[in-house]
Amino acid sequence: MRVIEGGVCAALGFTANGVHCGIRKNHSKKDLSLIFSSVPASAAAVYTTNLVKGAPITVTKKHIADGYAQAVICNSGNANTCNANGIEIAEAMAELVAKELSIKASDVIVASTGVIGQPLSIEPIAEGLPALAAGLSAEGGKAAAEGIMTTDTVMKEVAVEFTVGGKSCRIGGIAKGSGMIHPNMATMLVFLTTDCAIAPDMLQKALSGDIANTFNMISVDGDTSTNDMVSILANGLAGNAIITAEGEDFTAFMKALNTVTIALCRKIAGDGEGATKLLECKVSGAADLATAKTVAKSVICSSLLKAAMFGADANWGRVLCAIGYSGANVDVNKVDVSFKSKAGIITVCKNGAGVEFSEEFAKQVLLEKEIEILVGLNSGEAEATAWGCDLTYDYVKINGDYRT
Amino acid sequence: MRVIEGGVCAALGFTANGVHCGIRKNHSKKDLSLIFSSVPASAAAVYTTNLVKGAPITVTKKHIADGYAQAVICNSGNANTCNANGIEIAEAMAELVAKELSIKASDVIVASTGVIGQPLSIEPIAEGLPALAAGLSAEGGKAAAEGIMTTDTVMKEVAVEFTVGGKSCRIGGIAKGSGMIHPNMATMLVFLTTDCAIAPDMLQKALSGDIANTFNMISVDGDTSTNDMVSILANGLAGNAIITAEGEDFTAFMKALNTVTIALCRKIAGDGEGATKLLECKVSGAADLATAKTVAKSVICSSLLKAAMFGADANWGRVLCAIGYSGANVDVNKVDVSFKSKAGIITVCKNGAGVEFSEEFAKQVLLEKEIEILVGLNSGEAEATAWGCDLTYDYVKINGDYRT
Repeated sequence: MRVIEGGVCAALGFTANGVHCGIRKNHSKKDLSLIFSSVPASAAAVYTTNLVKGAPITVTKKHIADGYAQAVICNSGNANTCNANGIEIAEAMAELVAKELSIKASDVIVASTGVIGQPLSIEPIAEGLPALAAGLSAEGGKAAAEGIMTTDTVMKEVAVEFTVGGKSCRIGGIAKGSGMIHPNMATMLVFLTTDCAIAPDMLQKALSGDIANTFNMISVDGDTSTNDMVSILANGLAGNAIITAEGEDFTAFMKALNTVTIALCRKIAGDGEGATKLLECKVSGAADLATAKTVAKSVICSSLLKAAMFGADANWGRVLCAIGYSGANVDVNKVDVSFKSKAGIITVCKNGAGVEFSEEFAKQVLLEKEIEILVGLNSGEAEATAWGCDLTYDYVKINGDYRT
Repeated sequence: MRVIEGGVCAALGFTANGVHCGIRKNHSKKDLSLIFSSVPASAAAVYTTNLVKGAPITVTKKHIADGYAQAVICNSGNANTCNANGIEIAEAMAELVAKELSIKASDVIVASTGVIGQPLSIEPIAEGLPALAAGLSAEGGKAAAEGIMTTDTVMKEVAVEFTVGGKSCRIGGIAKGSGMIHPNMATMLVFLTTDCAIAPDMLQKALSGDIANTFNMISVDGDTSTNDMVSILANGLAGNAIITAEGEDFTAFMKALNTVTIALCRKIAGDGEGATKLLECKVSGAADLATAKTVAKSVICSSLLKAAMFGADANWGRVLCAIGYSGANVDVNKVDVSFKSKAGIITVCKNGAGVEFSEEFAKQVLLEKEIEILVGLNSGEAEATAWGCDLTYDYVKINGDYRT
C-alpha cells in the first residue's frame, strides 16, 4: 500500500469540484462541492446519533437505502437543520444535481454543514450548480475539499493505492472537521471514494466496522454534531472480482480504508477549532477493548487536560482524574502515565502516584505540535487510541461569535 | 425563613478561622481553614464518584462512619491525591486538630483541594494549627471561606434562619468551586453547619436528597474532581426536638438546606474558572424528572453554547444540538427555546425550528451577567434546573498553566 495524490479523485472514474455559489458572504470561500462517479457505485454511510438531525441526513438515508449512489452534493455555511422546509430544500439539491448530471435524484448523497436553524435558500445553489458541474475534473479533489470547510484552517484529503485480487485499487477521501466534534456511531463530514469493486452490504460492513475505532475516537469539544456523516462510494472500475464476503480481499480493503480514515482522524483532530496541538491518547494494558476506549476518550475529552497541553504543562493529575471519572472499571493504583513527542518521552506517574521528573524536559516534550499521552493500565492486553486537540483562546474566540 | 450573616458560623456553637500556613507560596493567600462545633454534632457527607479519590475522602468516610463529628480541617493549594503517603498525612492532620481542640481524631472531617499528585508536607500545617485554633471565633466564617479557595475569585458563604418545632434554627455554609466542576453524586468542597437537632441518618437523608437537584446539577467544565465533598454538621444547640423521621420538621429543615445549597450552587457556577456569566438552564414540560435533568445538564455542559454565551451570541442551534445528543428521549419537534435576563425575554425557537427575532434585542438580553436558558419540551410536567457558566479566554489561561 502506498500514499498517493488525488484525494477523492484518486480512484478511477471519480471527478469533483468546489465553487463559491453565494451561501457564504465571503466570496473567497468556496461553499458548494460536488463529487461524481462516471458509473453508479455501491454506497454506504454512517450518520450522527444526535436526535436533532439535519434534513440532508434524512434525505441521504432514503437515497442510499437501495445500496447505490453516483454523486455527492455538499454545501457549507448553513447546516439546513431545524428549518421547517429543510427536507424540501435537501430534495431540491438532489434534483438539481440529477438534472445537471443526467442521473437519478435518488442516486445523490446530500450533505450540509454550517449554522443550525437558519433557512437555507435554494437560489444560490441552483445558480452555482451549472458551473460546478461543468468544472468537474479528476483534478478537482482539492476544490471539493475546500468547498466543505467551515472553521477548518486546512483542507483535508488523503488517498492510498492498494491491491485486491491482483488488481490495483485506490481509495481516497476528504473531510471537514473543526468544531462540534465528538462523534458517536458516526462523525463529522467525510466523503470517501474507491474504485474497488465491493457489494453494498460489505461496503457498509467495512465502513461501520472501521469508524468504531477511528472517527468515533475523536473529540474536539464534546459536542456531537447534528449533521455528522461519513459516506463512501465504490464504483468497481479497478476491475477486481467484486468483494461479496469476508476473506483476503475484504481484509485488504479494510486495511486500506483504515489507513485513509486514521489519516483523516489525525487531520481533523489536529485542526480542531483553535487547536495548536494534536493529542493522541494511547491506552494499553486494559482488561478489555471497551475499557481501553472509554479511558482514551475520557482523557482526550478533559477540558482541563486540553488546557494544560496548550500551556505545555505536564499536569498529569488531570490524566488520572479523567481516568477516574471515565466510568471504566480501572485499578487506579496500577496506572502509569508518560508524555511522548518528537522531543522524547517522559514518565510522570507510576502505579497511580507521581514520580520525580525534570519539569524542564517535560516542557520540551510538550512544546511539540504532536503529543502522545501514554496510559498503561497494567491489567490486560487491550489497547485503544483516541485523538483530540488542545483547548485554546482561539476556540473561545471562534465560538464566541460564530454566526456574525 | 430569612437570609442572615455569618456563613458557617451563623448557627449557634460554631466557630471558624482561616490562615496562611505556607502550603501556598503566595503569603497573601490563606491556605488552611478550621470549623469547630463546641459540642459533638450529627455529621453527614457525600463524596466524589471519581475512582481516583483524594486521601482525605477515605479518612473522612472512616471518621464519620459513626454519624458524628466535631470539626472540619481543610487546606487549599494541594489536593493530597495520588500521593504514596496521602492517607498518613490526612490522618496526621486529624490528629493535630484533635490534640489542639481536645477532641477525638475520629471526630475530625479532613479535606484538601489543589494540585493533584504532589506530596503534601505536614510541616506547614503543624506549624499553622496553634494560631489557627487560637483564632477560632464566631466572626471567623469569612476567613474559613477564604482558606478553602483555589482559583475562586470570590469567597462563597450563605446562611439562613428558619423555624423547626417552634424553635429558631440556623443553617449556613461555605463553598469552594471554580474548576474541575462537574459533580456526580457529590461535588466540590462545601461545608455546612446547623444548630438544628437532627439525627445522623436523617441528616444524611436530607443531604443526599438535596444534592441530587443542587450540586449535582452544576457544571463548569465537565471534569469531576477527585476531592469533591459536601459535609454537614448539626450540633442541636437550637434546642428543637430532635428530627428522627420524616414529617413537618424534616420538611422545614430540607427547605432551609435547599435554600442554602441553591445559593451556593449559583455562587459556584457564576464564579467558574474564567467565567463572566452565570448560566441557568431551566427545563420544563418534560415527561419525567430524569429527562428534565439530563436535558438541563447537557445544555449547560456544551462548550459551544458556553462560548456563544461569552460572546452574547443567540446561537440557539447549539441548545437544540445539546438536547439532541443528551441521550434523553425527547421529541425535538416540540422544543421551544427562549433566553431571559434582567433585560427581558426573547423566544428564538418554537417547535424545534427557528422563529424570527431581533438580533439587537437578543444581544441586549445576553449581555447581562445572569442568563436563563428556558427550554420547553411540551411533553409533560417535570422540571429541572442546571447551573453553569460561560467558556472564556480566562478559563484557558488559568488552566494552561495552573501549576506554575
